[in-house]
Amino acid sequence: MIDFRSDNTGRAAPEILDALIRANNGTALGYGADEWTARLQQRFAELFETKVQVFPVATGTAANALSLAAIAPSWGLVFCSAAAHINTSEANAAGFFGGGLKLAPVTGEHGKIDAAALTQVLTGFPPGQLHRGQPAAVSLTQASDLGAVYRLDEVRAVAEIAKARGLLMHMDGARFANALARLQCGPAELSWRSGVDILSFGATKNGGALADAIVVFNPAIADGLAVQLRRAGQVWSKMRFASAQLMAYIENGLWLRLATASNRAAARIAAGIANVPGLKLVAPVEANEIFLEVPGGVMDALEADGFQFYRRSATLARFVCRFDVTDAEADALVASLKRHCSAPAKAAE
Amino acid sequence: MIDFRSDNTGRAAPEILDALIRANNGTALGYGADEWTARLQQRFAELFETKVQVFPVATGTAANALSLAAIAPSWGLVFCSAAAHINTSEANAAGFFGGGLKLAPVTGEHGKIDAAALTQVLTGFPPGQLHRGQPAAVSLTQASDLGAVYRLDEVRAVAEIAKARGLLMHMDGARFANALARLQCGPAELSWRSGVDILSFGATKNGGALADAIVVFNPAIADGLAVQLRRAGQVWSKMRFASAQLMAYIENGLWLRLATASNRAAARIAAGIANVPGLKLVAPVEANEIFLEVPGGVMDALEADGFQFYRRSATLARFVCRFDVTDAEADALVASLKRHCSAPAKAAE
Amino acid sequence: MIDFRSDNTGRAAPEILDALIRANNGTALGYGADEWTARLQQRFAELFETKVQVFPVATGTAANALSLAAIAPSWGLVFCSAAAHINTSEANAAGFFGGGLKLAPVTGEHGKIDAAALTQVLTGFPPGQLHRGQPAAVSLTQASDLGAVYRLDEVRAVAEIAKARGLLMHMDGARFANALARLQCGPAELSWRSGVDILSFGATKNGGALADAIVVFNPAIADGLAVQLRRAGQVWSKMRFASAQLMAYIENGLWLRLATASNRAAARIAAGIANVPGLKLVAPVEANEIFLEVPGGVMDALEADGFQFYRRSATLARFVCRFDVTDAEADALVASLKRHCSAPAKAAE
Amino acid sequence: MIDFRSDNTGRAAPEILDALIRANNGTALGYGADEWTARLQQRFAELFETKVQVFPVATGTAANALSLAAIAPSWGLVFCSAAAHINTSEANAAGFFGGGLKLAPVTGEHGKIDAAALTQVLTGFPPGQLHRGQPAAVSLTQASDLGAVYRLDEVRAVAEIAKARGLLMHMDGARFANALARLQCGPAELSWRSGVDILSFGATKNGGALADAIVVFNPAIADGLAVQLRRAGQVWSKMRFASAQLMAYIENGLWLRLATASNRAAARIAAGIANVPGLKLVAPVEANEIFLEVPGGVMDALEADGFQFYRRSATLARFVCRFDVTDAEADALVASLKRHCSAPAKAAE
Repeated sequence: MIDFRSDNTGRAAPEILDALIRANNGTALGYGADEWTARLQQRFAELFETKVQVFPVATGTAANALSLAAIAPSWGLVFCSAAAHINTSEANAAGFFGGGLKLAPVTGEHGKIDAAALTQVLTGFPPGQLHRGQPAAVSLTQASDLGAVYRLDEVRAVAEIAKARGLLMHMDGARFANALARLQCGPAELSWRSGVDILSFGATKNGGALADAIVVFNPAIADGLAVQLRRAGQVWSKMRFASAQLMAYIENGLWLRLATASNRAAARIAAGIANVPGLKLVAPVEANEIFLEVPGGVMDALEADGFQFYRRSATLARFVCRFDVTDAEADALVASLKRHCSAPAKAAE
Repeated sequence: MIDFRSDNTGRAAPEILDALIRANNGTALGYGADEWTARLQQRFAELFETKVQVFPVATGTAANALSLAAIAPSWGLVFCSAAAHINTSEANAAGFFGGGLKLAPVTGEHGKIDAAALTQVLTGFPPGQLHRGQPAAVSLTQASDLGAVYRLDEVRAVAEIAKARGLLMHMDGARFANALARLQCGPAELSWRSGVDILSFGATKNGGALADAIVVFNPAIADGLAVQLRRAGQVWSKMRFASAQLMAYIENGLWLRLATASNRAAARIAAGIANVPGLKLVAPVEANEIFLEVPGGVMDALEADGFQFYRRSATLARFVCRFDVTDAEADALVASLKRHCSAPAKAAE
Repeated sequence: MIDFRSDNTGRAAPEILDALIRANNGTALGYGADEWTARLQQRFAELFETKVQVFPVATGTAANALSLAAIAPSWGLVFCSAAAHINTSEANAAGFFGGGLKLAPVTGEHGKIDAAALTQVLTGFPPGQLHRGQPAAVSLTQASDLGAVYRLDEVRAVAEIAKARGLLMHMDGARFANALARLQCGPAELSWRSGVDILSFGATKNGGALADAIVVFNPAIADGLAVQLRRAGQVWSKMRFASAQLMAYIENGLWLRLATASNRAAARIAAGIANVPGLKLVAPVEANEIFLEVPGGVMDALEADGFQFYRRSATLARFVCRFDVTDAEADALVASLKRHCSAPAKAAE
Repeated sequence: MIDFRSDNTGRAAPEILDALIRANNGTALGYGADEWTARLQQRFAELFETKVQVFPVATGTAANALSLAAIAPSWGLVFCSAAAHINTSEANAAGFFGGGLKLAPVTGEHGKIDAAALTQVLTGFPPGQLHRGQPAAVSLTQASDLGAVYRLDEVRAVAEIAKARGLLMHMDGARFANALARLQCGPAELSWRSGVDILSFGATKNGGALADAIVVFNPAIADGLAVQLRRAGQVWSKMRFASAQLMAYIENGLWLRLATASNRAAARIAAGIANVPGLKLVAPVEANEIFLEVPGGVMDALEADGFQFYRRSATLARFVCRFDVTDAEADALVASLKRHCSAPAKAAE
């Protein structure tokens, strides 16, 4: 079996688990008052070239929902893509942690928000209207949930509109490293320098194990969030084991190496199938995910060949590359796709 | 420095981290649909001698708050000791996850609920009263937050009253293993056979690292809880790394060996200071915690001697034993306490 | 000025305020333990031909949001029309009272849910999926938010699908009387006999003043709701003044007379403009609302003529008839529409 | 029967219902965009001698819970008397609307918070502690829930401590008029000039019918509250009928005349029983409530005489005076109390 199901089905990078083991030494104060967590603050400040507050959390859902609850009141509206993970896949965690805050979809291509569409949507919320909640924040998923990546100018265009209206900016960076690897820019460029106030900093999908993080650039947000995390059951008493994972994740560029590897595998597949008749990419392959319209019957044939992937509909398949997908595995998928697409069409079920 | 601050300042048991490393192999479905988590269900069913559902979570606060939210409506009242961790130390997580459910203190000795007091309190909530919320559940902390342990008959006495009124029973078992080690009974006896519907199964304080669990005995509760955990950001996508820790924790009786060790250290200290004038235990030392009234100035002297512990008030000190506290460390604390208590009294601040 | 803005801009029926005045006599226990509220239970049981529990509330938003929170867990999904008032106009009150429950739009004509579309949507929620919340309830708006009315067979078709999946049924009856007047059936037929478990019973839009109600047909729902209403600040201490209004509302068929009058005015207008070129009804006029696509410039002209109404978009106007709209007012609107539509087109802005 | 059960069992003042009737004239925009509500803002600004925002609400519970939710984050702690209505009688509405905010009792005499006790309690919440929630606000009940009244210097002493710590101040003025009548000061003195940021402005208990209000002095609070009220189902679409009640309530000093009358009745009773052996006031009678320790058997005897009142315990009776309690009724109660207290003691049950 060759697994393209998800980047969360994979192994953790050994460096990250090694760091966890090394942290198992001596005693340390609980709930984040340990040395590992203190160093984490310092290292992320260097990484992001500014003072930040980093809060390790168990999951990306926690990172997203608690970030949004930190920047929107319970009567707030958060604008996002209809395809955003926060809207489709997190069981309305944002509404739960946010006391009933509501996600409001904004259109755009490839799982991204379009800046002009955001402007248009906002005209429907004149100041003083009480009936639909208050515009409070915008959330961008970077890379997007269809495998595309916002360019810096796209992030800034959305941020400019948001700021003009007093909205705060969240970035769901479950695949932040993949976006960075794609854009070849620094983390500061892709976050606060482009208007992001709070970032869900994903590690799990990119070789992490049991910890993601929230990175706060806007200090006014951090104090309340610290308490909220405690009551949300997201502050481990033995926090050092989480902080050590996140330290190892960014140390020596590990995170970018991992993301580069998974992006490269996806690009290799995309290039391989570029001219195969019958296949159609739903969005450009700019990170580590491939969303592919395939002819009827091809998905069955791929599974018969031993490939694992997700069916999003009868004709839409998703393939996700992990950091440890090999060239041989990528090439095997390409070959299988080519073979089945050139075969005489079978009757789709 | 000799550390008696908390059982969450300590190392994880090496066996637990080893299991986490061993789980880093191959691909596995996310969000708990992996083999490790499946085996966890099976092993806990054997351990508890009944079908159970086990949900790994990041923290004890998550375990408690989500358990209570699963058994009480948002307008519910949960009866607990005023000293209960859920009431004093979790930033009202239960009220948050429970949509405003309220904790209602019940008196009792040594951090335990007294069954007669519960009966009395319940008379204040006649059926149909709307002004104070609805009695919904009882939460027992086992071992208690003052280091005592409910005997089985005490648990059952509370459960009987609760059930007669239609209330569900939660046990905060952050130190469940310590209580078991004390009572020398099986986990089934101390939980569902004594009326417990849902258990916060603590591992972190007893040699765990990054995972505790909720154990559900009442199947009607489990379905909703599964979704709630997902939206609460408590379902890791790489769940195998959490499940593997919990498997190792109970394998070959590890958890009970660890708890026996920490209980033994606490008992050794308690025995050592039994007749020291000026010292007074706030509660019997039945698990791994010692709450001690000490004369003014003695706490300063202990710290000068290199002991770390928590001051709960000007005259109340808490000492917690981890599984790896040595006899020498325990004896050193006893010696220091004796020395300073027999010294001429210093003026307390 | 002739006001077609809303049915909430209007006067209360004098009978309703008279009843409120008459209730101002003697002392009476608070919070609904008075004789008026007891009689209200009895009268509604007669009206609905079954035992019900009636809870007066201040507003329709409270009725809807608390009804939904009573039948869906906080992780629940409630299916409704995208055009439903609960989805578009109540500031996500349902999400707030429901602790983060989420509304999920289902397509259909004229602001109604289509039964086949509901079936289709439900296939996307297989049992055991945790990522999108749990299907919990369906909410129908009767009359719909575009002025149409569900026929009995349409309500039952939706209810059948809902029940087969274990979902509870809510009806937002802000204009329940208008629907009854249209369908010429009894309130029992249009509610519990067609599968409705809980009803937002609107009075305000149909000649009421300060009270609507929740009517519960499923007794399992009522106990918790009673407490929830208390804590939601919806239980007046001087409840008699609310109950008296609702009693007067249904006494001697007042509510149906009022609804018949407002429906008749709307039908008169609809008939009058039936063949006017350039005008297009968005939905059949089956209650007291008219949604009309009009040529550019006509809305300005109507306002210049002294008509008040709401602009839903540059070309969509809403006209709502109150119970006291006169034939002359209706005819004046028709005449004005005819005049401006036959006039040479002005340039729309 | 002579009714001393509560000030919510009574009639509304006729002036208030008359105003409601007079408002039933013409059409008016919904949701508070009407002339009555605009005038209400203006009149309250004159009354309070400063710009305020007034939000009519259905109940005192709504006023309190929404006020607290407006000034405390969901992780906030609100300090109040253990006897406060928000703590004992509102089904934890504050925790519900506040997303899990927690009430924290502070000791003091006669249902009042003691400033020194507040200072002491706050020392237990050093900045940066995450485990108990964040101190956010203080709530005073004026008059207190035991019938006493904070003097201006007492309010200010609490406010000074609160402000020094950055806490906002709420006053539960369910009996604000009674307190004003007692203190003979202006509403500005007793509210914002003494440090109050937000006031639950009670009318119902003092001759109102179906509306209380929230008065906001701190403009930073008002914008969010306006949306929150909408989603909380507290914004009537026919708001004019609520605003008209509140206008009439304060017009020509009606509210103070009513409160003076009920205070006077209570004082008359208190004076009458001053030296009766066996009776003991729990708190000074400074408003319209009397909390009286009475010998066993006397409560039965009073009921046999036709008096209605509440038993708070086996020996504690509460008598509440409405604005329309007559001297004869007050004197009858005094006479009955005297008679039964001088009678040979009966065996208490």
